[in-house]
Amino acid sequence: MQQLKERILREGRVLPGNIVKVDGFLNHRVDTALMGDIADEFARYFDTNNITMVLTAEASGIALATVCAQKYGVPMVFAKKAKSDNIEGGLYQSDIFSYTYKKKVTLIVAQEWLGPDDKVLIIDDFMAKGYAMRGLIDIVQKAGAQLMGIGIAVEKGFQDGGDSLRREGYDVHSLAIIDAVDGGKIVFREDC
Amino acid sequence: MQQLKERILREGRVLPGNIVKVDGFLNHRVDTALMGDIADEFARYFDTNNITMVLTAEASGIALATVCAQKYGVPMVFAKKAKSDNIEGGLYQSDIFSYTYKKKVTLIVAQEWLGPDDKVLIIDDFMAKGYAMRGLIDIVQKAGAQLMGIGIAVEKGFQDGGDSLRREGYDVHSLAIIDAVDGGKIVFREDC
Repeated sequence: MQQLKERILREGRVLPGNIVKVDGFLNHRVDTALMGDIADEFARYFDTNNITMVLTAEASGIALATVCAQKYGVPMVFAKKAKSDNIEGGLYQSDIFSYTYKKKVTLIVAQEWLGPDDKVLIIDDFMAKGYAMRGLIDIVQKAGAQLMGIGIAVEKGFQDGGDSLRREGYDVHSLAIIDAVDGGKIVFREDC
Repeated sequence: MQQLKERILREGRVLPGNIVKVDGFLNHRVDTALMGDIADEFARYFDTNNITMVLTAEASGIALATVCAQKYGVPMVFAKKAKSDNIEGGLYQSDIFSYTYKKKVTLIVAQEWLGPDDKVLIIDDFMAKGYAMRGLIDIVQKAGAQLMGIGIAVEKGFQDGGDSLRREGYDVHSLAIIDAVDGGKIVFREDC
């Protein structure tokens, strides 16, 4: 998606450790008009008339997932990150390793809001190693729901999270894939 | 807001400890159409043509704040909850007591995304004792920005968070104020 790539080049910053910071429009301050354009772009790829919900993980995925769900006319459910092992019943849960916090966190979704009849489009703002995404997929499978696709705004291709999922057959569609950060310069994958 | 009150009565559940659970449409599964109606209702009360941004706190406020910001044509900024005392520079921060986690958390907003020229509308899905709200107000004041108002979807009136802010002169507008939970029955304040 050209508009998103240009925005990343113009406003993104590369920090030590190959961290790509896009917090001016995607995951701290959110450009809500851009989120609308991203939602439209996903709708050109996925069959959004045939989903029952959009699923994401808290916190930074919520803004984009909300705009998508509103456009597609379905509810948005966000998996919560449990802060303790003391979790009540009636929940699907999946343990993931949090790259951000460098520790195990548990993603949870109430069984009330996700079930075998659901057709789920997973949306997230960012994917690197894909740990959170694997937790969301695990939850969809535990619920017996149908996974209709995975839409990502910005993927860090060189961390292999997206490609490893594609190799396993998942339909992962990212609107900007960063394949390298060479000396502070962001290099996008050509075919996305 | 009649539609919201009816929704709370129909789908909300009262749990032990006077916890009012509205996670089927507000803060776990999110009814994005209802969020749009709530955003319109805030726009009838606040001068949304005269704001530069919507501010909220992660995580559950993000969905509603995003829909509001999109309708009003401004960016949405969400304060992050820092998990440690080890916080980098360039940030406004405010320590709050988290009712949810029963411990101190620090709300942070990058100074880059909030400044003296900003006119801020704070939006949140829920207010009880108002601890998180006081953190957000503190951050707006530290930035030298102008606070244009505080819009809340559901306020627990009996926990005094909203009324204590009103007594101090803040323009707090809540669309449903729960004044009592008598034997599991939800009682709304009449004049809201």
